[in-house]
Amino acid sequence: MTAYLNDRFIDNSELTLHVSDLSMQRGYAIFDFLRTIKNVPLFFDDHLDRFYHSAKAMHLPVQQNREQLTSIIHQLIEQNDLPEAGIRIMLTGGYSADSYNPAQPNLIITCNPVKTSTKEDFEKGYSIITYEHQRELPYIKSISYLTAVWLQPLLREKKVNDVLYYNRQSITEFPRCNVFVVTNDGKLVTPVHHMLKGITRKQVLELAAAFMPVEERDITVDELMSAAEVFLTATTKKIIPVLKINDTIISSGKPGPVTTKLYEQFLALEQSLIS
Amino acid sequence: MTAYLNDRFIDNSELTLHVSDLSMQRGYAIFDFLRTIKNVPLFFDDHLDRFYHSAKAMHLPVQQNREQLTSIIHQLIEQNDLPEAGIRIMLTGGYSADSYNPAQPNLIITCNPVKTSTKEDFEKGYSIITYEHQRELPYIKSISYLTAVWLQPLLREKKVNDVLYYNRQSITEFPRCNVFVVTNDGKLVTPVHHMLKGITRKQVLELAAAFMPVEERDITVDELMSAAEVFLTATTKKIIPVLKINDTIISSGKPGPVTTKLYEQFLALEQSLIS
Repeated sequence: MTAYLNDRFIDNSELTLHVSDLSMQRGYAIFDFLRTIKNVPLFFDDHLDRFYHSAKAMHLPVQQNREQLTSIIHQLIEQNDLPEAGIRIMLTGGYSADSYNPAQPNLIITCNPVKTSTKEDFEKGYSIITYEHQRELPYIKSISYLTAVWLQPLLREKKVNDVLYYNRQSITEFPRCNVFVVTNDGKLVTPVHHMLKGITRKQVLELAAAFMPVEERDITVDELMSAAEVFLTATTKKIIPVLKINDTIISSGKPGPVTTKLYEQFLALEQSLIS
Repeated sequence: MTAYLNDRFIDNSELTLHVSDLSMQRGYAIFDFLRTIKNVPLFFDDHLDRFYHSAKAMHLPVQQNREQLTSIIHQLIEQNDLPEAGIRIMLTGGYSADSYNPAQPNLIITCNPVKTSTKEDFEKGYSIITYEHQRELPYIKSISYLTAVWLQPLLREKKVNDVLYYNRQSITEFPRCNVFVVTNDGKLVTPVHHMLKGITRKQVLELAAAFMPVEERDITVDELMSAAEVFLTATTKKIIPVLKINDTIISSGKPGPVTTKLYEQFLALEQSLIS
C-alpha cells in the first residue's frame, strides 16, 4: 500500500517516526478515519470538518489547507485502488525538543483494506457491559484509548463484544462507537455530553428525524436497561443492535423494528453515494 | 548517543517505530525515567520495580528479566558516559494487527544528558494553578499525558510553572510530580489515592519520618490553600517549594523550614549514593 508522510507519498512499510515524536512520548496526537467504496470517500466533508476541528482544539497546526488535503487523499485512494478502504489521517505532536511541548506536527495518512460489518453481524448483534469511565477531552478525536485497550482482557473474560462507558450515571459512548436508545414511548435518544460526535451518528439522526421524534440528551443507565431497543453506530460497524447488556436481554434478543429500519436506510444512503 | 531497541544497541537517530505501533495508534505504552550521576543510576531498584509493575498492570510482557535489563542499562550508561544522564525505559503495545489489541511489545531505552533543578530553582520556587482532572489508570506510569500537554498554553497564559490536579475536592498530583503539604500543626502529608507513587516521594517520606509525623491521606483543596508549606517532588526537579497557588501566596512566598531541611537531606542522600 502507498501511504503519505508530511509532504510525500511513500510505501506503507517506510512509515516510521522517531520515538521523540510526542505521540510516543506523551500520547499526544489526533486522527480521523473514513471509508471508501469504489474509490468514493464516504461523508468526506464531515470527516475533514472533524479532523480540522480536532487539530485546532489540540493546538496542532495543519500545514495543508482543506483543498490540498482533499487532493492528497484522492490521489492516495486512486494509487491504492481498493474496492473498500479505510483512510486514517493522523496528526501528531511532532518531534518535541523537551518531550513535552508540541513541535511541528507529523502528518500521516494511510489507506488500507477495511472490513466492515455484514448483514450477519447485524443479525447477531452485540453483547456488552457498562463501565464507569470518562475519556479525556472527549470532543477531540485523539489517540487516547488507554482504558479501552486495557479493558480488552476483561471483555474477553466476560465474552462480550464491547464496553459502554458511563459518567456519574449517564451513559456516554463506546470507546469507538456512539450509542442510541429507542424509548418505550417511541423516541430515538442519544447522548450529547462528554462524548465524541460520530459521523455515522449524524447520518442516523438525520434519517430518523424524518419518521420519529429524536432527542439528544443525557440517558441514565436505568433508562438504557429498560429501553425498547439499543444500538451502536460507527464508521466500520455502521449500525449494530445491542441485544444484551450486563446479562440483561434487550428487545427480546432480536434486532428491533426501528434499528432494522435505520440500518436499511443507512445501507441505501451508502449505495446512493457511490452510484 | 547510543540507545537500545528490543535486542540491540543503536544510534539514537535510528530509533524509529512503524506507525502501526500501539503507542501511536492508541497511546498504549508505559515507561519509567531515572537519573544517573557519574554513571551511577539513582534509586535503580525502585525504578525497575515500578517499570515491571507498570508493564504487568498494562498486560505487556517484558522479554528481558530483571538481571538482563539491569545489564543492558549499565552498558548503555557506560557507552554514553555522561556526567549526568536521564534514562527512559519505554515499553509499547507493539505492532498491532488490528490497531487495537497489543502485540509483542517494543522496548526502547534512551540515555540522554539531563537538566536537573538547581539551588536557584529551589529558591525561586513554583507558582501553580489547580485543575480538576483525573488521569486514567493513575497507578500505572503510562504515556497518557493528553490533558497535561493540552494545558500548556493555559499555563503560559497564567504565567505559572505547573498545574496540580484534584479529583472531587481532593488534590492528587501534578502531571509529572507528587505534592506534599506541611500542616499548621507540623505534620507532613501527601496524597495516596488516584495518583502515581513517585520514587522521590518515597525517599522524602523516609527522610521526613525520622524527624516529624508523616501521613499518606486525602488532602482537600482548602487544606492545601491554608498549608504552612507546600512542595513538589520529581526525579529531575528533586524538591521544589510551591510558593503561589491560584494567586494565593504560600508560606510568605519563601521556601519554608521543613521544605529546606528535606531538600538538604535529599541532596546529601544523592551524594552518599555516588561517593
